[in-house]
Amino acid sequence: MKYRILPAALAALVLGSSAPADEGMWLYNNPPREQIRAKYGFEITDTWLDHLMRSSVRFNSGGSGSFVSEDGLVISNHHVGADALQKVSTEKKNLLRDGFHARKAAEEIPCVDLELNVLQSIEDVTAKVNAAVPAGTSPEDAFKARRSATAAIEKESLAATGFRSDVVTLYQGGAYHLYRFKKYTDVRLVFAPEQQIAFYGGDPDNFEYPRFDLDICLFRVYENGKPVKVPHHLVWSKNGATADELTFVSGHPGRTDRLRTVAELEYLRDVGYPYALEYLKRREVLLNAWSQRSEENGRRSRDELFGIQNSRKARDGGHAGLYDPALMDAKARSEQAFRGRLSGRPEFAEALAAYDTIAKIQKQLAGFALRSRLLEGQHGFSCDSFGIARTLLRAGDELPKPNGDRLREFGDAGKESLELELFSDKPIHEDLEILTLADSLTFLAEKLGASDPLVKSVLSNQSPRARAVQLIATTKVRDVAFRRKLHAGGAAAVRAAADPMIEVARLIDAEARELRRQSETAEETRKQAHAAIARARFTLEGASSYPDATFTLRLSYGTVKGYEESGKAVPPLTTLAGLYQRAEGQHFKPPFDLPDRWIKKRRALDLSTPFNFVGTHDIIGGNSGSPVVNKAGEFVGIIFDGNLPSLVLDFAYEEVVARSLSVHSSGILESLRKVYGAKDVADELTTGRRARPGCGPAGRCAGPAPPRPRS
Amino acid sequence: MKYRILPAALAALVLGSSAPADEGMWLYNNPPREQIRAKYGFEITDTWLDHLMRSSVRFNSGGSGSFVSEDGLVISNHHVGADALQKVSTEKKNLLRDGFHARKAAEEIPCVDLELNVLQSIEDVTAKVNAAVPAGTSPEDAFKARRSATAAIEKESLAATGFRSDVVTLYQGGAYHLYRFKKYTDVRLVFAPEQQIAFYGGDPDNFEYPRFDLDICLFRVYENGKPVKVPHHLVWSKNGATADELTFVSGHPGRTDRLRTVAELEYLRDVGYPYALEYLKRREVLLNAWSQRSEENGRRSRDELFGIQNSRKARDGGHAGLYDPALMDAKARSEQAFRGRLSGRPEFAEALAAYDTIAKIQKQLAGFALRSRLLEGQHGFSCDSFGIARTLLRAGDELPKPNGDRLREFGDAGKESLELELFSDKPIHEDLEILTLADSLTFLAEKLGASDPLVKSVLSNQSPRARAVQLIATTKVRDVAFRRKLHAGGAAAVRAAADPMIEVARLIDAEARELRRQSETAEETRKQAHAAIARARFTLEGASSYPDATFTLRLSYGTVKGYEESGKAVPPLTTLAGLYQRAEGQHFKPPFDLPDRWIKKRRALDLSTPFNFVGTHDIIGGNSGSPVVNKAGEFVGIIFDGNLPSLVLDFAYEEVVARSLSVHSSGILESLRKVYGAKDVADELTTGRRARPGCGPAGRCAGPAPPRPRS
Repeated sequence: MKYRILPAALAALVLGSSAPADEGMWLYNNPPREQIRAKYGFEITDTWLDHLMRSSVRFNSGGSGSFVSEDGLVISNHHVGADALQKVSTEKKNLLRDGFHARKAAEEIPCVDLELNVLQSIEDVTAKVNAAVPAGTSPEDAFKARRSATAAIEKESLAATGFRSDVVTLYQGGAYHLYRFKKYTDVRLVFAPEQQIAFYGGDPDNFEYPRFDLDICLFRVYENGKPVKVPHHLVWSKNGATADELTFVSGHPGRTDRLRTVAELEYLRDVGYPYALEYLKRREVLLNAWSQRSEENGRRSRDELFGIQNSRKARDGGHAGLYDPALMDAKARSEQAFRGRLSGRPEFAEALAAYDTIAKIQKQLAGFALRSRLLEGQHGFSCDSFGIARTLLRAGDELPKPNGDRLREFGDAGKESLELELFSDKPIHEDLEILTLADSLTFLAEKLGASDPLVKSVLSNQSPRARAVQLIATTKVRDVAFRRKLHAGGAAAVRAAADPMIEVARLIDAEARELRRQSETAEETRKQAHAAIARARFTLEGASSYPDATFTLRLSYGTVKGYEESGKAVPPLTTLAGLYQRAEGQHFKPPFDLPDRWIKKRRALDLSTPFNFVGTHDIIGGNSGSPVVNKAGEFVGIIFDGNLPSLVLDFAYEEVVARSLSVHSSGILESLRKVYGAKDVADELTTGRRARPGCGPAGRCAGPAPPRPRS
Repeated sequence: MKYRILPAALAALVLGSSAPADEGMWLYNNPPREQIRAKYGFEITDTWLDHLMRSSVRFNSGGSGSFVSEDGLVISNHHVGADALQKVSTEKKNLLRDGFHARKAAEEIPCVDLELNVLQSIEDVTAKVNAAVPAGTSPEDAFKARRSATAAIEKESLAATGFRSDVVTLYQGGAYHLYRFKKYTDVRLVFAPEQQIAFYGGDPDNFEYPRFDLDICLFRVYENGKPVKVPHHLVWSKNGATADELTFVSGHPGRTDRLRTVAELEYLRDVGYPYALEYLKRREVLLNAWSQRSEENGRRSRDELFGIQNSRKARDGGHAGLYDPALMDAKARSEQAFRGRLSGRPEFAEALAAYDTIAKIQKQLAGFALRSRLLEGQHGFSCDSFGIARTLLRAGDELPKPNGDRLREFGDAGKESLELELFSDKPIHEDLEILTLADSLTFLAEKLGASDPLVKSVLSNQSPRARAVQLIATTKVRDVAFRRKLHAGGAAAVRAAADPMIEVARLIDAEARELRRQSETAEETRKQAHAAIARARFTLEGASSYPDATFTLRLSYGTVKGYEESGKAVPPLTTLAGLYQRAEGQHFKPPFDLPDRWIKKRRALDLSTPFNFVGTHDIIGGNSGSPVVNKAGEFVGIIFDGNLPSLVLDFAYEEVVARSLSVHSSGILESLRKVYGAKDVADELTTGRRARPGCGPAGRCAGPAPPRPRS
């Protein structure tokens, strides 16, 4: 297996590999020109890059997208748009479930709270930021000085350009770049398919491949009540992605942890993931068994169950990756080599020591992580009632303190969201509360031992189940009025109420707080150790590689390429025919059923049309909705998922089996035209402009095509 | 909570309870006359008892039943008859799924390999057996002497009476009783409903209540080609069981462990059950997720998945019981009191020391149980291919040894079944093999650590998944001809084949064998310690209580009674109306769908008819199919399950929430008459005799009713 670890060049050397991997989430002001030239013979020009940058869109809801017409049409994933779809749905019109199509401009629906950003420029402000921190400044003062310097830079830039201006910390503090974004806040919904085809196959096919998902959603950006004319948009490719083709992904990967040390990865492999997976699987079995007892049970636990299954799959995938000796050996060799370069140089003594600090912290964590998850993380008290009880208890104790001394969530800044949550009247189901509390009290007793003094106090000489029934039956915290009264009355009122669930929260509070303090101290020490290593790395290597993901625009590249699974070849592309085969093979049973119109329009479709495809692109969460473009800069697909092995990309790039998953541009067009009769949208995609009123078929009276970027 | 621990009298004293509990699986030659007289004012007469004993039937397939007509009609559970139904089913006629009804004698289908036993007498032969063992005999010689004495008693009894004669060891060797059975081997199938109504609600409702199951199956016993005339059968009650009624269960509980010490229960609670449940839940999630990927996957894993869900529910229930302080405290007090009685008396020194021996063994077990489960128990290598590989490897090593020196399963006695299994051509699915092996290798690495030398050797510098793919792809053990060749060639051929999976089995074999040796030694020591305690107990208490279950006929008693769950009252009986409500509430989705005729005949039914009910009877596996009778000795229902809390009855009796579950006699009649049109069967049940040919409506020309037992 070929794993590439930062720095790519070093790892390649260590592994003695011939061709460099398709690794990297590259900065737009430091693109992998040489790598691509060497491996693919393709030259990234400034024009090409600038066009792609200005065509790329960031969704503040946590995803990516791109302009696909000069009239401000933006394409992203259905699951990126889901929040917006949910917010504009009504009881009668469930747009998330049933889809939407605005047949004319007036029907386009304004989205709530949706902000799109388009990157305009990047400026390296490292020197400016560092100048604000004279040598010898204490860490605490340095933090403040840096913060005030970046704030000043952002303010000045905003005033000068009118653009949203963010100073982004890269290379864990090795560099500071100023990102300027054009900001759009009037975003309207144009088209969405049914959720059932956007997320076809549901949880069973989540993170799997082959796939058959039309995971798209189209928006239009407005300014001053009119669609914006954007200077850059992606031209729709005639044929879309083809096997073995070099393609690029331009999007906003959210977060990676590629600089984790071997000690950290071993901790995750041996302690962190096994515990998390045991907890998730236990809970999945609990909720699954309960939800099958009745439809109402199923309804009540559906969201949590899906969330658990999603997390369980993701972690199972990541955990499997950590068990790959190729990955761990490459990490170990790379780390060894880098430590060798630090050794014997006084200026890197801190960085060298940081490795030992991190290893020591992992050992400490192993000692108290379990108790911390159970007591502070509530894994031993899992139910809404306990969460509310703890918030009431702690609010009473925390709020009288000076703002700076409080637990984070009780700070003045969070007051509004705290009260929103605390006084929410969302339904809490007593039976589900008993179920989860009884199970988590059992888990607590199992893990800490039935004779642990705290466990004995909590259970109060009852069985976990009997205790759960009693606590849920007697606590009043599910009554919002009761909560308001206690919250208003402060610690004295909380104590006077003597509510059984609050008293359980009180019983464990001293130890839970102490465990939290230990966790936070360990986390802070770990961060500082990483910063020391990152500084040393930056000193030695500069920007010769890419920094960890930061939800800023990055360029990835790779080829459209299948892989092997259990010794069998998995093809790079699926077709619309495959969708119907999958549905038939499953006898159209949920989640493999098809929306009515997909059944009716089957004969109208060209079933050989490519639908989804996989590639070797280096992506991670946040890349959802990123355009996939070819060498000509044309839109050939849209990222929507990764396969199970790709879940290890958080820690290291892999290209033997890890794959990005995209919807194919041709599958999008075919669906729009033949299933949805959305000729207007399809025409806008192919012509790059909206049909003008009174202009007949879209594009027919259009002017000359917009200039294509040339590479 | 009221838990009763052996001895009942002592526990009652300790707990200071007013009324004794409905505890006990009593011997027919030592019935709880006084307890029942005291609590219920009812007198058990010899006639009453003898009639019930001779009406009770034991199924050699592991269940209970009873005669319900003078013409040899026997009623048991559908799930007790399932094996027989399966064996007489053909590709065209799936009797297990679709049910069966012989409308005339000629249609009754002979069952394969089914033997029924009816107890005729019990004789105490303790003195005889013990006389064969003079004081001072070594344990090994004592075992042989006892064995030869019991064999002689059995042989003599068979010759004298013609009855099957078994000497049964009771009170862990405190007593030996000779059981004489009338044996029937010509058993024919008369009636079975569809499995869907027999096991209505499937896994979601398994071990739950309220329930709506018609879990019955009717057979007829033949001799010399004709239905037997039996001298005793149960008269069908006119109204069946009613709330708060005293009822009796006569059946064959298989095995209980009520004499387990506190140390053993704590081990189970803290180590044994948590490990087993973690393993089961992990596997349930794995198979459940995989089975949802396709219908074929679902088909391939259905049996294993159901088995796992069944075990998981059973253990979750038992585990919850062990967390009940009432149970554990009562156990501890009872044990303390008993040890107090042993203390200072030299003749009980061995028994007293046995408690410490057992506690020591539990500690030892905790030290090696995990490794033992993973290596010898195959939890780290879970797939059929590994099992076959190990058998080939060990057969090569074991078979050349003298018979007495071999591992048990390779003894001469087991040769036939070993080869049957080894050369079976049952389908083994490569994809499922990879799935389970990859997951169990991950489990192995998780539990023993990735740097454990054995784990490293097994994984051979690959990830668990890659290694699983490689092993399954390259091993030849799924080829039956290959197996035959290696088995015939012995150890040399096995080694020469150098099959990768066999070599993995070889790699761990030395340690696996050593772990097995340790486990077996511990188990043997534990058994001997228990025997010492049991002897002391029997010396002090004699037969004042009931012995642990031994799959011999026992009498339990209790009342038809609801209970509280999560603070809500659960009613003692359900009705046919409830069945339809349950189906409607679940929109008739599997496993809550109803057989067609149940939908068609709904209007014909009296929906207020009782269908299932719960009671406080002390039952355990093996009681399935036991008749429930009233004070008049009439059939009022049939045991088919216990609720989740009843799963603790293995260790101790409980009557607050643990309940037996039965089908109500009236629900059986109403179903037979109105849903199945099985008037003949229903009439035979109510008249106690089969309709005679040419006799018109059954019973009309029948003679006087058979005498009822009087109490």
